[in-house]
Amino acid sequence: MEKPYVVGIDIGGQTAKIGIVDARGNVLDQTAIRSDDTTDVNVFVENLSIAVEKLVTKNYSMDQIRGIGVGVPNGNYYQGTVENAVNLKWGGSNSLIPLAQLFSDRVKLPVRLTNDANAAALGEMTYGAARGMKNFIMITLGTGVGSGIVVNGSLLYGHDGFAGELGHVTMVRQNGRVCGCGKTGCLETYASATGVARTARERIETTDVKSILRNIPPESITSKDVFEAAKEGDELAKDIFQFTGKILGEAFADFVAFSSPEAIVLFGGLTKAGDMLYEPIVESMNENLMPLWRGKIKVLFSTLKESDAAILGASALAWEL
Amino acid sequence: MEKPYVVGIDIGGQTAKIGIVDARGNVLDQTAIRSDDTTDVNVFVENLSIAVEKLVTKNYSMDQIRGIGVGVPNGNYYQGTVENAVNLKWGGSNSLIPLAQLFSDRVKLPVRLTNDANAAALGEMTYGAARGMKNFIMITLGTGVGSGIVVNGSLLYGHDGFAGELGHVTMVRQNGRVCGCGKTGCLETYASATGVARTARERIETTDVKSILRNIPPESITSKDVFEAAKEGDELAKDIFQFTGKILGEAFADFVAFSSPEAIVLFGGLTKAGDMLYEPIVESMNENLMPLWRGKIKVLFSTLKESDAAILGASALAWEL
Repeated sequence: MEKPYVVGIDIGGQTAKIGIVDARGNVLDQTAIRSDDTTDVNVFVENLSIAVEKLVTKNYSMDQIRGIGVGVPNGNYYQGTVENAVNLKWGGSNSLIPLAQLFSDRVKLPVRLTNDANAAALGEMTYGAARGMKNFIMITLGTGVGSGIVVNGSLLYGHDGFAGELGHVTMVRQNGRVCGCGKTGCLETYASATGVARTARERIETTDVKSILRNIPPESITSKDVFEAAKEGDELAKDIFQFTGKILGEAFADFVAFSSPEAIVLFGGLTKAGDMLYEPIVESMNENLMPLWRGKIKVLFSTLKESDAAILGASALAWEL
Repeated sequence: MEKPYVVGIDIGGQTAKIGIVDARGNVLDQTAIRSDDTTDVNVFVENLSIAVEKLVTKNYSMDQIRGIGVGVPNGNYYQGTVENAVNLKWGGSNSLIPLAQLFSDRVKLPVRLTNDANAAALGEMTYGAARGMKNFIMITLGTGVGSGIVVNGSLLYGHDGFAGELGHVTMVRQNGRVCGCGKTGCLETYASATGVARTARERIETTDVKSILRNIPPESITSKDVFEAAKEGDELAKDIFQFTGKILGEAFADFVAFSSPEAIVLFGGLTKAGDMLYEPIVESMNENLMPLWRGKIKVLFSTLKESDAAILGASALAWEL
């Protein structure tokens, strides 16, 4: 019997998004469940399985599903496990959850998982801005900074499955910001949505530049506030994106020295800042590149619809099955 | 007719070393010619070809040679070219030399080339400290800092063949040292033999710590002088290796975040410093790693005899033919 579809699942801290995908990358149908309403992974797996079966059997049958791909924070492709996932209610530090096995046993379908940024990279390669590319780096600029590295047409997993933690390269070696990972000065503490908000609070504290951001209580400033202010021409806010782009560009130049990619593809909330972020990134990257690469490395924004991208990325894993 | 041997050639700024190698990694016979006595690549290719033929036909025949592997600075694996090789007399900036083609046409054997650090990585993987490893990073600490990155058992070449320029990641973003590549603050300006000598001159200039290095004219201090002084317990000299190791360890931690290797393998003159360099590297790397990798990444010194290593590395390329 033919199995023309796969299921892609994107598990985040609050929700799990589930979609049925065909070989052309059409999301035929989708749904979502909460991922934060239980601390017991078995309950979560049961809820997820019921949701998958309900979604699939509405218009198709489980026999038509080739397999399930899952993108999940701290997912280990080699082991099928979720490790130390502090942002997942049923995860937690020192946890080691055999999610692929539990889920596969329950739904009787093959399941493959990877971390969310790797899934995004697969999605871009299969359906998005990186179609046809064999060497590129995916950077997700969300609450944190994630990365998926593609070399020779395959995701780079490394010795233990955890390659591509580019949000945690050290960008500031003295007096760097404290990072959730236990280090200081990580890229993520500057170049994520939370990093942008931290920069805003720091600038308000340490400069006397006029800004409409000063009308917001510092502790509740978000990257969205900074974006709105910058759009209205607020100098401090524009400076914050300039600074964020500069740090990203510096980091990208080092990434290029590592894997010499054709492109760096950006995805996630911060990319809404558009040219305010894009221009300083490209300028700073080229300033910091070795001459042989200057002007030659593409920086691209994802072309996938944000609501579909995570599901598509995860689904791309299932086609490997 | 069986072809049981390959020829490995290591081209450096002054000499080209040539060896016949069997499948077990024995260098059966070797010779060397000058590489700096002509500015004409055709003359160099002719000299090299004559030397190869002479070496091979002494005890074997050209028919027994499967192919030739060449390690050369700025060698491009994809194109078989040598690009902008400022350290080669017949190279120079903006040069683009089709060395593999020229050489192959002359000796009537297949020729494959790559850069010298990639060749060293292949040598370690085929015959040395990285035997059996599928993910490791080779770092050569010589006059400069070179690198060869192995992922999934293959060298990482990237989109254009130039991946693995880890000597040119930026380690010092403010007031960094000027690098030959056109940037400032590159790892190579601190952690190479010349970097060690630069650090010595800087320390002599900017501190008043007593040191036997002060007896040498600053401009003629070499890394060997620093090594000899440190061996005799000279505090300033020991501090220089401490500083060099610290920067290397910081860089390695970022490399691990990229490709999550099983090991980082070190090769080249500076490794003679042994524990004086090894201990600060390992300490600094672990301090700067994400917790998940701390204590888990091996740092190894090459196990290949230095005189054979470059030839063996280049020869490993020829077995791919």
